[in-house]
Amino acid sequence: MKALVYTQLGKVELQDRPIPTILAPTDAIVKLTYTTICGTDLHIRKGDVATCAPGRILGHEGVGIIHEVGSSVSHFKKGDSVIISCISSCASCENCRSGMPSHCSTGGWILGNEIDGTQAEYVRIPHGDCSLYAVPKGVDEASLVCLSDIYPTAFECGVLNARVRPGATVAIVGAGPIGLAALVTAQLYSPGRVIVIDTDDKRLKVAIELGADATLNNSSKDVIAATMELTEGKGCDAVIEAVGIGPTFELCQKLLAPGGALANIGVHGGKVDLFLDDLWAKNITITTRLVDAVTTPMLLKMVEAKKLNPGQLITHKFKFHQIEDAYRMFGAAAQHGALKVLIEM
Amino acid sequence: MKALVYTQLGKVELQDRPIPTILAPTDAIVKLTYTTICGTDLHIRKGDVATCAPGRILGHEGVGIIHEVGSSVSHFKKGDSVIISCISSCASCENCRSGMPSHCSTGGWILGNEIDGTQAEYVRIPHGDCSLYAVPKGVDEASLVCLSDIYPTAFECGVLNARVRPGATVAIVGAGPIGLAALVTAQLYSPGRVIVIDTDDKRLKVAIELGADATLNNSSKDVIAATMELTEGKGCDAVIEAVGIGPTFELCQKLLAPGGALANIGVHGGKVDLFLDDLWAKNITITTRLVDAVTTPMLLKMVEAKKLNPGQLITHKFKFHQIEDAYRMFGAAAQHGALKVLIEM
Repeated sequence: MKALVYTQLGKVELQDRPIPTILAPTDAIVKLTYTTICGTDLHIRKGDVATCAPGRILGHEGVGIIHEVGSSVSHFKKGDSVIISCISSCASCENCRSGMPSHCSTGGWILGNEIDGTQAEYVRIPHGDCSLYAVPKGVDEASLVCLSDIYPTAFECGVLNARVRPGATVAIVGAGPIGLAALVTAQLYSPGRVIVIDTDDKRLKVAIELGADATLNNSSKDVIAATMELTEGKGCDAVIEAVGIGPTFELCQKLLAPGGALANIGVHGGKVDLFLDDLWAKNITITTRLVDAVTTPMLLKMVEAKKLNPGQLITHKFKFHQIEDAYRMFGAAAQHGALKVLIEM
Repeated sequence: MKALVYTQLGKVELQDRPIPTILAPTDAIVKLTYTTICGTDLHIRKGDVATCAPGRILGHEGVGIIHEVGSSVSHFKKGDSVIISCISSCASCENCRSGMPSHCSTGGWILGNEIDGTQAEYVRIPHGDCSLYAVPKGVDEASLVCLSDIYPTAFECGVLNARVRPGATVAIVGAGPIGLAALVTAQLYSPGRVIVIDTDDKRLKVAIELGADATLNNSSKDVIAATMELTEGKGCDAVIEAVGIGPTFELCQKLLAPGGALANIGVHGGKVDLFLDDLWAKNITITTRLVDAVTTPMLLKMVEAKKLNPGQLITHKFKFHQIEDAYRMFGAAAQHGALKVLIEM
């Protein structure tokens, strides 16, 4: 089969690889129908993710058809349409049983990281029963690649961790796919005002279309002063970091109101400055999270009910044999007006 | 009257000052019976607290007798014995009404910081009705200086923010008065194991007497490796920083289990390193807090019920005219085996 491989620092390549086989009775083999590229894949390519070594087939998102299941998989059978969760969960270890499958002792985020991933014609999914979801009837299958990772990530790591609540003032730093998915799902909690900050005016225009109350371009103005002006000097109750670099995380700290919460979503490749001399007395909370995907069933219900349209973030489509071009384009996504890139097998 | 004044960077001095007078109808003037010195006063002296300028009478802790009240003070009258809270609260601004009097718009931590404090024969307490507590009958008055700040601070900023809960593994970094008060109040929530870390063996001995399950001296061993060994490689669910310097805050980050919470109590004078490259995917929470003193009534009930003995942390006593000596001794507290220093007027 063809598969997209992280070959060395800075480089990915389409290669021939053997079709994966069942290794454990809980495994499922899925024939991909659609996959996509995540900002995290770009972080891997630039060496930010120590657990992912060269030689790995990338990808942790996708929709497909069950090709084969191990003897103890009971919820799925050959031919079923499934969504692949970016988080594999045994559902039985201590972390899974306490609601944190992101840190499953034999799963978590392993796809396209510690084991081969979904940017391939076939993928082996460990713990199939608890790591796949049935595609609901009457739903556009392609759009569900956004349920593998970005919607639950934006919602759990961003909206829930930042404690977005009715009336709250929210700032979202970064208007890429994750930041925009946070914008969409933040509105489930009726915030008072959502301010979206990015360096790209095209992305900020999309943010307004998706419900932002205000946008600020931090390449052209002092966004700290502008945010304080918008919030009568108070700052924001909930700040969501959806970029993953030091300067944006540091900016987020300066947007916080006393008592506020800063939810980090971004993948970081280095340490950052924490301004504790200012923050020690400010009653703030900072959170990090690898998505647990525990809200995927809820988000799927929203999609079935036509109250969430995950496909609205898909701007570009490629065939799988063009995936190297897709990486090149996605690597300069803002410049191309790109958000989520659909890869059709 | 005599008062202890922060005169310049690195220096405090006993001076003559006028007795304070009522400035607002909500004020109370308290004649001090006992006061004490806080680690925060030492942070002020070394310039870590930008809001406190030279010329300020220090101190935000004390017990005394009402000397005079403004016309709208209704809960207290001349002659009443009172505990002074380190937090002054108007009880009516937005922050007070949402449970965060630490950020009261006309109060918060102002005593011995933005207005003159309690290391004096008399002090003016703004918002007297909501910033003082009646001394319960049958309780050792001197011991209650520990209820002005250190017990509510250790409990709210440390134990509650770190989400100490039954069965949890807890690490407390710093076995000074605040760290030990966190150790005592952590036990209200029946943690599974409490590990206390300090550089001083005498303080660690006290920690064992006060209920620590294990202690580690970080001047003589690799406490990260030792903590991982004690926790079967998992790390700690709750980590409490009770020092207020970069190296201890950075140590705390490395003790966290996935899903754990790091509660900062320490006063910090500079920025610190945050290891987001390790933490971004670790589902952790970091909190800061200036005490709101909203649990002071509960702690007072524990004292009345003889289930909390705040005086057990008092190791040294001085008369007020010796307060400069007390500062000298407290500035090298660990070396003198000192925890909380009682100053008698």
